[in-house]
Amino acid sequence: MQNRQDAPIGIFDSGVGGLTVAEEVMRQLPNEKIVYFGDTARVPYGSKSKDTIIKFSKQIIRYLRTWDVKAIVVACNTASALALSEIKEELDIPIVGVIEPGAKVASEMTKNGKIGIIGTEGTINSHIHTKLIKEHKPTYQVTERACPLFVPLVEEGFFLDTNVTYEIAGKYLEVMKENEVDTLILGCTHYPFLRDTIRKIMGPEVNLVNPAYETARELKKMLSELGLAASAEATAGNGAGVTADLKAAEASSRMLSTQTSVGTGMHRFCVSDGADKVAHFAKERFPFPVENVMQVNIEEY
Amino acid sequence: MQNRQDAPIGIFDSGVGGLTVAEEVMRQLPNEKIVYFGDTARVPYGSKSKDTIIKFSKQIIRYLRTWDVKAIVVACNTASALALSEIKEELDIPIVGVIEPGAKVASEMTKNGKIGIIGTEGTINSHIHTKLIKEHKPTYQVTERACPLFVPLVEEGFFLDTNVTYEIAGKYLEVMKENEVDTLILGCTHYPFLRDTIRKIMGPEVNLVNPAYETARELKKMLSELGLAASAEATAGNGAGVTADLKAAEASSRMLSTQTSVGTGMHRFCVSDGADKVAHFAKERFPFPVENVMQVNIEEY
Repeated sequence: MQNRQDAPIGIFDSGVGGLTVAEEVMRQLPNEKIVYFGDTARVPYGSKSKDTIIKFSKQIIRYLRTWDVKAIVVACNTASALALSEIKEELDIPIVGVIEPGAKVASEMTKNGKIGIIGTEGTINSHIHTKLIKEHKPTYQVTERACPLFVPLVEEGFFLDTNVTYEIAGKYLEVMKENEVDTLILGCTHYPFLRDTIRKIMGPEVNLVNPAYETARELKKMLSELGLAASAEATAGNGAGVTADLKAAEASSRMLSTQTSVGTGMHRFCVSDGADKVAHFAKERFPFPVENVMQVNIEEY
Repeated sequence: MQNRQDAPIGIFDSGVGGLTVAEEVMRQLPNEKIVYFGDTARVPYGSKSKDTIIKFSKQIIRYLRTWDVKAIVVACNTASALALSEIKEELDIPIVGVIEPGAKVASEMTKNGKIGIIGTEGTINSHIHTKLIKEHKPTYQVTERACPLFVPLVEEGFFLDTNVTYEIAGKYLEVMKENEVDTLILGCTHYPFLRDTIRKIMGPEVNLVNPAYETARELKKMLSELGLAASAEATAGNGAGVTADLKAAEASSRMLSTQTSVGTGMHRFCVSDGADKVAHFAKERFPFPVENVMQVNIEEY
């Protein structure tokens, strides 16, 4: 199994937003190598059909497998919502998405049983969070809201801390306040960049759940159980006992953790368009170096 | 030549915005058949690289040629700005984009020689309008501004007539007012949907140029000169004399004409994703029936 333990983890997203998940994986699994793929030629996925998202996801997984990855993380909420179950059936390596971990932690954190979920049209219209939450907690009330302008607002940057963003977010989140949600899942990798605005609107008492943290945790647990954790990781005792670590001490960092420096190891970053632009964007937003971004003709896979 | 005259015209865009150009072509060339292709699987083009836009455009043209089109209209401003000159070199049928016609009419309409252009990042960063205008009028002053939030605002719809859109547009157009432009090119097919807001900000004296009208005119002229106009069209005397028609009487409709009913003929509408959604969107926004929208796997071309 030595070879498989040393193999990299493939992480993919429709664009660069998934780097927030990559960052969390680097932080929690500092000995793992990552191959990141961002589908910048076809971004965004949020408003596209299930069939198209499945096709794109399969192409990307075929590409990631050329790197002999030992596991895959679907960092994109839309792809996790629309394609994960179909992909899983055909795949002989472990795969984890961002939906289940987010839904799970929200169910654990809520006190009044009223959970909110915001995401792209594709994610929200899949109603997957509601299904997952109600499977275990049928009496819980889940409020769903698509926020199509949040991604372009983050990518534009210009209006981030202005009245414009506050007004737009206010409209989108109105229903969350009306329905008294006490826990809100940020169901899109771009949304943590709007956390200050969302926090201001929702108030200090509401839990804001960033699924990146739980996804990395889930991945760590899965690799340990399967004996696939990278060597140094495996010897550090982060194996089967990881579940027991889920304690109140972690509760605060399970939400929106502040960015800190993380190890870079031997990571690879690949995109389907605009490698230079991605390197530049990542340099401004992420605490780890994203260098030598490779451009891949993903349609060939 | 009979066969070629009866062949359809191919029109393409990154998505559904180019239907505004198709509408103008239907209005001005009511006897022509159209094959429209919208690349909804990979929309938007506005922030993607030149190489990628060229690749996508070539695939679409290969697809349109399977319909044996006699001419091609690049309805997408970004593709016109970034890919038209490269495509033209390899193509043996006539092709027209939306940039040159828009730049030309703006140059004719301005009184103070101060022209503004708004569009996507790709269009604006190409500086193609400025180059075209300055080629003929080197003393003219051109003010460029990318407005990345306009397309998502139109597609979201929800905020169209609200203070949010007014504030965003106000920020984007500030520089146009500062530089005293008297003629503003709406260099993206989605922008005419924001004309009321733009008009309110720019004032009643400023010319708002929608390149769709001039593009259809240019196409009509080109088909006539090449003897490619559809039969009934050719007999209606809209041939070589068309240039002389460009008179003051037309000046108002050269700008943002109101939508009126147009003939539908035997048009085809194709997209790379979400055919049903497109049919629904088109039904709400366009005065012609868009039925039986075909879905095409464009990456195969």
